[in-house]
Amino acid sequence: MTRKLSTLASVVFTFLAICPHRTAVGQSTKSPVIAVAQTPPMGWNSWNKFGCNVSESLIRETADAMVSSGMRTVGYQYVNIDDCWQVSRDAQGNIVADPARFPSGIKALADYVHSKGLKLGIYTDVGAHTCEKRPGSLNYELQDAKTYAAWGIDYVKIDWCDADGLVPEVQYAKFRDALAQSGRSIVFSICNWGVKEPWKWGPLTGNLWRTDDIKDTYDRMSVIGFTQNGLEKYAGPGHWNDPDKLEVGNGGMKPDEYRTHMALWVLLAAPLLAGNDLRTMTAETKDLLTNPEVIAVDQDAKGVQGHRVWQEGPLEIWAKPLANGNQAVGLFNRGESPVKMTLDLGVIGVSGTARLRDLFAHENLGTIQHSYTAEVPKHGVVLVRVAQ
Amino acid sequence: MTRKLSTLASVVFTFLAICPHRTAVGQSTKSPVIAVAQTPPMGWNSWNKFGCNVSESLIRETADAMVSSGMRTVGYQYVNIDDCWQVSRDAQGNIVADPARFPSGIKALADYVHSKGLKLGIYTDVGAHTCEKRPGSLNYELQDAKTYAAWGIDYVKIDWCDADGLVPEVQYAKFRDALAQSGRSIVFSICNWGVKEPWKWGPLTGNLWRTDDIKDTYDRMSVIGFTQNGLEKYAGPGHWNDPDKLEVGNGGMKPDEYRTHMALWVLLAAPLLAGNDLRTMTAETKDLLTNPEVIAVDQDAKGVQGHRVWQEGPLEIWAKPLANGNQAVGLFNRGESPVKMTLDLGVIGVSGTARLRDLFAHENLGTIQHSYTAEVPKHGVVLVRVAQ
Repeated sequence: MTRKLSTLASVVFTFLAICPHRTAVGQSTKSPVIAVAQTPPMGWNSWNKFGCNVSESLIRETADAMVSSGMRTVGYQYVNIDDCWQVSRDAQGNIVADPARFPSGIKALADYVHSKGLKLGIYTDVGAHTCEKRPGSLNYELQDAKTYAAWGIDYVKIDWCDADGLVPEVQYAKFRDALAQSGRSIVFSICNWGVKEPWKWGPLTGNLWRTDDIKDTYDRMSVIGFTQNGLEKYAGPGHWNDPDKLEVGNGGMKPDEYRTHMALWVLLAAPLLAGNDLRTMTAETKDLLTNPEVIAVDQDAKGVQGHRVWQEGPLEIWAKPLANGNQAVGLFNRGESPVKMTLDLGVIGVSGTARLRDLFAHENLGTIQHSYTAEVPKHGVVLVRVAQ
Repeated sequence: MTRKLSTLASVVFTFLAICPHRTAVGQSTKSPVIAVAQTPPMGWNSWNKFGCNVSESLIRETADAMVSSGMRTVGYQYVNIDDCWQVSRDAQGNIVADPARFPSGIKALADYVHSKGLKLGIYTDVGAHTCEKRPGSLNYELQDAKTYAAWGIDYVKIDWCDADGLVPEVQYAKFRDALAQSGRSIVFSICNWGVKEPWKWGPLTGNLWRTDDIKDTYDRMSVIGFTQNGLEKYAGPGHWNDPDKLEVGNGGMKPDEYRTHMALWVLLAAPLLAGNDLRTMTAETKDLLTNPEVIAVDQDAKGVQGHRVWQEGPLEIWAKPLANGNQAVGLFNRGESPVKMTLDLGVIGVSGTARLRDLFAHENLGTIQHSYTAEVPKHGVVLVRVAQ
């Protein structure tokens, strides 16, 4: 079944490549619209920390912080406003931003964000209302896409509230076609929390599709991260599984747990959308979010999502092949006490010796024979790059 | 590493078999002590529902309910008192039961439970104090084991509180030896919540070892259940991984989630210790706990723990080989909406046709070719028996 589906997908992609009027977003390089999300999108989203409390000043200050913190330098670029920026439609049906919270309007905000070398993202919903009861895009798909393009929006996340009776793969395809007609390259983020296996239709529709719904707890984060196994065949340049935004720095997990969060997400080639307050983050949070060796795993040009290669109860090893032939490998301890874990090179297809580097410690571990053993903390991870 | 460990275990078991004075509990049939837990223990434990609120009347009424509900008929037999039954030691160091809560004493209670055709279990701790600050068994291992035997205790669960500085495999081995010297066949339940990988030393020490710590939520139950994969090589007759007691009927999960709990536990060949109030349970709870076709999977004589054979994100298929050549197979949907799942017979090593039976619906599904597709509810399961 799996092989058949991959074959089908290849056929459809080939068809799309020679029929550019049927654009799979981010797939066709022949389209006038520039292919986006060739690596997993990196940026920030307002929801996890701020919920409905969004404003023009928050977005400007976040853009400033993304630059001053060094996040832009390591690849973060999308500053994404989530729900609650919109209040109504005007007489012509155009969506209207909250004038109290966004007094200069979204176009001016986009200009500001662009002036910082960053990109602006926005939020809507397939239904008549968003999750927070603001106007949704049902039957306004093309009109809204054109509005976003006129404002200079670079990324749109489309939610799945008020969606009773709607068929996700049909409804989201309307947006895909609307965005293709908007004339602007806009990353299309499908946010239906895994309903109806979005990985099966998402690659033909959006650049990323949410597979679940995160909370700032170790249990929830780890359930999501460790259940992405088996979805790797649906991901690749331009189309990514999205296990949801980062909670790093929001306070609900311990340092080793946030490190696990980050290591899992990069091995999964997941979008890296910080969800904390960038203006006030600690040095520890900033270091975790901006570790260039860890981010390089996520952003690797090969674009292959990693998968689990070994499990013994709460101990799991995941690996991600990289463009230069290296592999990134995570040794995860989901248990309640520290454990010595052994990576047998055979489980990642390496025989003989290999050179290892610890990506959190920034330390070469030398050449190892056959296996590598490390103490892994409770709920923690050791993340290494393996070169033959 | 895995293979080496299995070989080592075989050697040690062989050694034990010819050296009966070094008894691995439940392993040696040459010991005068009858081998126990040849299938995963079934019964009830007071902790999940009642915590410290245990008493002689609760235990008697629970034994009565185990009989009247039909639970005894389908295999439940151990009635296990958890923490808080003990209050002090007497001048000779003998452990003393709470005279207010157990006025007739433990011996009389054991006699009552035995008169119902059931067995009585009790609780202690490796440390100087239990988790609820009652007297623990540190340095009283043999004395306590002899007391339990004199009372007619059939099962002892030994916890891991107040254990700083203790080495679990050393400390639990003292109990193993003490129980072996007690002259009574007593099931030995190691309860150190996965600390120091108990599956690696547990098979030489106890009849079951806790791998984690449950709560009555779907997230916690499912994290535990689905992370048991890879531990199956450590389980077998007389020695079982223990993913913790059942929460079925305690109210924190929905019917489909409790069904998943039950299906996972039987596929895992887990101990089935009900954790609810047997005196007041609903017909739905009773039916789930006493489904004979489901329990037969757990109690199958082959004694093989099942494992995951397929995963695609939140969709998982697990299989357990049975003594008659059948397999029990669970199709689990950990996602947030109903999904049609397909069992390809190839993933369980069956080519051609097979006869299927739905173990919750008690329904023959007929002979199927190559694959079987079923709608699986959100957080739910379809559990089938597959015969070639």
